[in-house]
Amino acid sequence: MNFCSSCGAAVILKVPDGDHLPRFVCTRCETIHYQNPKIVAGCIVEWQEKILLCRRAIEPRHGTWTLPAGFMENGETTMEAAARETQEEACAPVVDLKLYCMYSLPHINQVYIMFRGNSPAGEAAAGPESLEVAFVGENDIPWDEIAFPVIKETLEDYVKDRRRKAFPTHVGDILRLPDRSIRIVRY
Amino acid sequence: MNFCSSCGAAVILKVPDGDHLPRFVCTRCETIHYQNPKIVAGCIVEWQEKILLCRRAIEPRHGTWTLPAGFMENGETTMEAAARETQEEACAPVVDLKLYCMYSLPHINQVYIMFRGNSPAGEAAAGPESLEVAFVGENDIPWDEIAFPVIKETLEDYVKDRRRKAFPTHVGDILRLPDRSIRIVRY
Repeated sequence: MNFCSSCGAAVILKVPDGDHLPRFVCTRCETIHYQNPKIVAGCIVEWQEKILLCRRAIEPRHGTWTLPAGFMENGETTMEAAARETQEEACAPVVDLKLYCMYSLPHINQVYIMFRGNSPAGEAAAGPESLEVAFVGENDIPWDEIAFPVIKETLEDYVKDRRRKAFPTHVGDILRLPDRSIRIVRY
Repeated sequence: MNFCSSCGAAVILKVPDGDHLPRFVCTRCETIHYQNPKIVAGCIVEWQEKILLCRRAIEPRHGTWTLPAGFMENGETTMEAAARETQEEACAPVVDLKLYCMYSLPHINQVYIMFRGNSPAGEAAAGPESLEVAFVGENDIPWDEIAFPVIKETLEDYVKDRRRKAFPTHVGDILRLPDRSIRIVRY
């Protein structure tokens, strides 16, 4: 951030009075520009003992497999965001959504909120951000080609839960350590 | 938003190629400035059959009672945000946090993520944004002076759950209808 989005003057990074963190503050109109984490909402879509995966047609991680998920928009609920992303990326209607997991990724300022839902008729096709989509059985999940640690973690939770037929809401953090390795904390 | 925060030129509202919603787009550098919902994280802090409430020293709803909660910052987890807000607003340490509820408020682009946690020693005092703080019993909750619908809903969930000694994770929406009345949807 270099300029004030309100008046167009230069901003500087400083700790405002009464605050405890540096913020971008306008040098002319003194507007404080806060920056906050974004929500990524998505879905595990179930159909006939299978789940829906998408192969990414976009960077990052072009060509790898993921669950349908994307940035929540202003004006929608988390559940609407998850269903919209599923429709956009996999042309797949989804119903009966239930909160499944929430993972914080503080190193990239994101919170993943994933639901579990049902496909009414197994309908799916690649949207513009997907190379292909597929309903896959538990034994056909391409574990070595999963796009992101948070997606791998969500899928691992899901496979374990399905075996014991219980789906509690999972809460955790995906942390990047100083040596750039990933540490997963579950609560 | 009037100006590009990257280059300082004017922005216009338009639907970018391949998108479906109007965004602020820079007329010079073409940067697309997305706007996304914010997370409000907070806590129900339990101590000796009581819970911690704060009386607001700030607008909106100055003088009414609320649970400690506030905007999640970049670089933290949802749980860290909830504990930090509890420390800032009520000078209260909180431990053993568990996800309690998630409510979407699409009319103000917020998602409330509330945890349930324990106060180790009943320690609390008014922070700069609180007029006073108090651990109150179930029969002393000031129902007519609660700051926001989402806080009242969270407290109502909690009182019911405590009576049946079960605390599932609640998910719902707080919607403002065209006549400006509030409708609460639970999933």
